[in-house]
This record gives sequence, structure tokens and C-alpha cells, in this order.
Amino acid sequence: MKDFAGTPGTLTSFVLRVAQCFFAAGSITSMATTESFFNVTAFCYLIASMGLQLIWSFGLALLDGYAMARKKIPHKPVLVSLFVVGDWVTATLSLSAAASSAGVTVLYFGDMGRCSLGEECTKFQMAVALAFLCWITIAISSIIMFWLLATG
Amino acid sequence: MKDFAGTPGTLTSFVLRVAQCFFAAGSITSMATTESFFNVTAFCYLIASMGLQLIWSFGLALLDGYAMARKKIPHKPVLVSLFVVGDWVTATLSLSAAASSAGVTVLYFGDMGRCSLGEECTKFQMAVALAFLCWITIAISSIIMFWLLATG
Repeated sequence: MKDFAGTPGTLTSFVLRVAQCFFAAGSITSMATTESFFNVTAFCYLIASMGLQLIWSFGLALLDGYAMARKKIPHKPVLVSLFVVGDWVTATLSLSAAASSAGVTVLYFGDMGRCSLGEECTKFQMAVALAFLCWITIAISSIIMFWLLATG
Repeated sequence: MKDFAGTPGTLTSFVLRVAQCFFAAGSITSMATTESFFNVTAFCYLIASMGLQLIWSFGLALLDGYAMARKKIPHKPVLVSLFVVGDWVTATLSLSAAASSAGVTVLYFGDMGRCSLGEECTKFQMAVALAFLCWITIAISSIIMFWLLATG
């Protein structure tokens, strides 16, 4: 297997995983601290999806950190296949959760004139924005992983 | 470049492209025949995104048909790169459009008790379901194209 920026066990990969954890945690915090998120299915789905993303990315960040400390790069095809499947599943879930929450948020803000939930409105917007940022970082990781598997 | 099921100029690829056109056209028809879709940004975005998908898939279906008739497979790396970028962009747009419309539809149906728009409710659901089917077929095409580019 080739070894380029972003493959497991490199600093780029580690930074991407930490960024995913950061954005996912921020999105969950912002959404879960509102008082009415549980009334909207899309918002609950956002929390579930970001939670899954957080667990997955945290696990892979630990693995990257361990691999960097041991200077041993985990590039076994079966392991990379597992990473590819996990990355693509979580990336798809993250994008769909971010988009469905964005659809509802835009409905509240733009289509109904203005959001009537006060301070919570900013939190909804913040949670959606962070979920999209999380999706961008997981998408970069997914593409690198898939490229590694295909060229491996 | 390798030649396997689903690469440009094969019957599988042609069938996938035709299926994408079919689902995208169905989704647009179902959504555009409702009377209130323009009140919701997510539904307008669904129509725009499915329209782009329809144009893109129709163009590639024509190309596949032409290549099958001439028995000449278009596998130049620069052409495949163009297909990969186009496929991924339209796939991402389709998924986000389907998910955001699904978020709003679920809000109308599940979270607000029931949909009060009568017959239109079924059309909204149908449009979202067809958009997800369209996304599944374009996702398969995208993965095949990316694999072709990476292994080429």
C-alpha cells in the first residue's frame, strides 16, 4: 500500500480525525442544549448521526496516535477496507443528517418569515453549520481512504 | 484502463444512467405538480438538484448508447476524471436535496401529527422516495467511476 498524506498513521489523518471529533461534539452540544430539539425528528437524527461520527472518529484518532507513536503504519488491506466502509457509512449519515436539519432550519427561518424560538434559533443554525463542517472533513478522509484501497 | 461492469460504454452503465433519468424525472414531476412546493426552500432545491441530475445522466446515457453502438469504450483518463467529478457533485447534491426534503416531509407528517395538505402530501412523499432511489443509482455509478479512475 502507498503512503501519502492522510493515510492512516500520518499526522494529516490524525488532524482530520480530531477535527471531525471537534465539529461533531460541537454540533451535538449546540443542538442538545436547546429545549425543543426533540420535537423535530431531523434534529434528533442529527444528534444520533453526530454521536456515531464522534465515536468512529475518536476511535480512529486513537489508532492514528498509537500508530504515530509506534511509527508503524496500519495498511493491511482488510483493515483499510473496514476503514473505507466505516468512513463512507458515517459520511453519508452525516451529510443526510446535516441536510435534513438544514431543510427544517431554513423552513423555520426563511420560509416562515422568522424563527420564533428566540435564542434557540442561533443554536440550531450553529449545530447545522458544524455538522456540515464535520461532513467536509469526513468526506476528505473517505476519499483518501477509498483512493488508498483502490490503488493498494 | 480496466473494463468491468458499469464502466462507461457498457450495458450496466447505460442501464444505471437510464434509471437515474427515470427516478429524477419522476421526482421532479411528482414535486412540481403540487401547488405549494414553492413555499418551501427544500422542495425547490429538490427540483433544481433533480433537474441537474436529469441533464447530467441523460447526457451520459446518450454517450453510453453511442459508445455501445460504435463498440468503442471511452476510457481516456481525462474523460474519466471529468465523469468522476460530475458524478460526485451531482450525487452529493442529490443526497442533500433528498435528505433536506425528507426532513421537511417528516416534520409535516410525523412531528406535526399529520399532513394537512390533502393529496399533495402523497406527492411530497413520492418525490422524496424517488429522489432517494435516484441517489442510490448515482452513488453506484460514482463508486464505479472513482474505482476506474483510481485503478486506471
